[in-house]
Amino acid sequence: MTAHPELRQDAVSGDWILVAPSRGWHISKFMNTHRQHPIPRARCPFENPQENGNGEAFLWYSKKGAETGPVRPDWILQVIKNKYPAVEKHAGTCPAAHAHGFYHKMAGIGFHEVVISRSHTKFLCDMTPQEAELVIHAYQERIVHHAKEPCLAYVLVFHNHKEAAGATIWHPHSQIIALPIIPPDVRRSLDGAQHFWRTRHTCVHCEIIRWESAQKERVIHRNKEFIVIAPFASHVNFEMRIFPIAHASRFEEIKPQSRLFFADALTVALKRLKKVLKDPAFNFFIHTAPHERGKFDFYHWHLEILPKTQHLAGVELGTGIEFIAMPPEEAARYLRNA
Amino acid sequence: MTAHPELRQDAVSGDWILVAPSRGWHISKFMNTHRQHPIPRARCPFENPQENGNGEAFLWYSKKGAETGPVRPDWILQVIKNKYPAVEKHAGTCPAAHAHGFYHKMAGIGFHEVVISRSHTKFLCDMTPQEAELVIHAYQERIVHHAKEPCLAYVLVFHNHKEAAGATIWHPHSQIIALPIIPPDVRRSLDGAQHFWRTRHTCVHCEIIRWESAQKERVIHRNKEFIVIAPFASHVNFEMRIFPIAHASRFEEIKPQSRLFFADALTVALKRLKKVLKDPAFNFFIHTAPHERGKFDFYHWHLEILPKTQHLAGVELGTGIEFIAMPPEEAARYLRNA
Repeated sequence: MTAHPELRQDAVSGDWILVAPSRGWHISKFMNTHRQHPIPRARCPFENPQENGNGEAFLWYSKKGAETGPVRPDWILQVIKNKYPAVEKHAGTCPAAHAHGFYHKMAGIGFHEVVISRSHTKFLCDMTPQEAELVIHAYQERIVHHAKEPCLAYVLVFHNHKEAAGATIWHPHSQIIALPIIPPDVRRSLDGAQHFWRTRHTCVHCEIIRWESAQKERVIHRNKEFIVIAPFASHVNFEMRIFPIAHASRFEEIKPQSRLFFADALTVALKRLKKVLKDPAFNFFIHTAPHERGKFDFYHWHLEILPKTQHLAGVELGTGIEFIAMPPEEAARYLRNA
Repeated sequence: MTAHPELRQDAVSGDWILVAPSRGWHISKFMNTHRQHPIPRARCPFENPQENGNGEAFLWYSKKGAETGPVRPDWILQVIKNKYPAVEKHAGTCPAAHAHGFYHKMAGIGFHEVVISRSHTKFLCDMTPQEAELVIHAYQERIVHHAKEPCLAYVLVFHNHKEAAGATIWHPHSQIIALPIIPPDVRRSLDGAQHFWRTRHTCVHCEIIRWESAQKERVIHRNKEFIVIAPFASHVNFEMRIFPIAHASRFEEIKPQSRLFFADALTVALKRLKKVLKDPAFNFFIHTAPHERGKFDFYHWHLEILPKTQHLAGVELGTGIEFIAMPPEEAARYLRNA
């Protein structure tokens, strides 16, 4: 346990966080106290997306597997265009950043999609690994699809759970966004991993996995192919990261048999989080290598789960240093033993 | 007005944000709907800080001006140690980052203080410039004080308004934190300003002020010495920045006569924000040059006001690109005309 405040550095990005365990803190301080009730099915836009003004699905599954053509009532998962897309499909030549007076800007082109599960109340944390594997399969299919698009540099899979984490719709769903630039946080992660690769001739995330596996204190769960850890320099209280144990740069190249191990790791992590913090709001996202082939073999893909246990305050917005009160080793102990 | 989504680059940090005006958005979408009631004075720890287990003030004022010795009941502003400090005073030699197994860490040394105004219900936005000037004077005095401390690299002044912005105590207060490292966000701002200075032989913020003054569309308020603008690449909806018009690297070197102009700019900005968004939660902080003399003359200090109009979601946490729905030009129009 951390008795005194300490600054910890992220071994990949180089960023610092501060662990400041307050006197007298208790696990209950981090628990969710806001009970969010499901909105009635009749008012849910994702109960029947096509009847609610959404177009046909880009991809959908019935119990029999992947389907083509218009979505039938026996769908169990579908991917549609986000009705309020943050980025838009482009027409014509690829846009580039250009001067706009003193500044620079660029057309916000891309794709913004929603991955919808059939059940109104069964979230990823409530699913069996077999059920979650289908969601993961859909993520994979859409990244593979977007990687073929010209003009786009990066595809992010992300998930917002509950209103406090930015979910505006109750019904379980994830989102996929394809962007024309490599996002700055991904760039910093890539740069850090590349620097490590060039100077130490190995993958920084592989080293982290080896170190954490030996230390054990921050390991939360492990199966044959995946490991779940509380990062040494966690950005938020109870942060978790899921890594494939063997080096792999791209999530979207995951093999069918590995998807089930990944689904096990993800559902176990989310179930434990639900239990320990009483169903908190959270976000997760996948960091995979950009799709330019051959250039990012040093990268090691992973998924980050960020529970919302506190509001970002001025000190974090003004410094870029995130302040946490729960030492990651303690968080890992709670989550490991849940 | 921005009809299509566009990526905009911050001219200083190089970071990108995305402006994605949703179809059918309306100003009311951004307004505060949560009415937070003041906690009773009897339960307020800041009504009488010394009786509530806090030590004596580092600095306090009565109506007559700066005072010394124990705080008297006629105090109108006082600065005390934060009862739950995120960083701690150090003893002995200055700590340095050191290896901790595979990682690096550093003792979280420093000072963490609270600047408390006497009134339980009068926030900065409710103050006259003369009243706010005293708060600003206290910020200045404490930065000047901490700059003399060994081992510390940076002092941040910040303010959290309301619970959603991380304020755990109702009573109007600001905070000051002195840290042993230059925070990464400050470092990026410094690096960007230094690069501009070296390549263009002028200050990037001076150029922004000149450009915005000529363009006018993002100017919210201006007095003889300060300008309030909506940044071209705003990180959040209705963001505002306050700059001294003449180049100045350090807030803490502000002259007494300029403090009143700064107080005017700050109170006008906060009053308009309160009116336009119906008293929203917000954070503000001051970015000033680190105190190592002579090294940061290229920097231009400023204050950033970040209203909380939405929850950060997975896409922002996974990319580092902030998504806003209100074009800064529109936000400036609302705030200018309030």
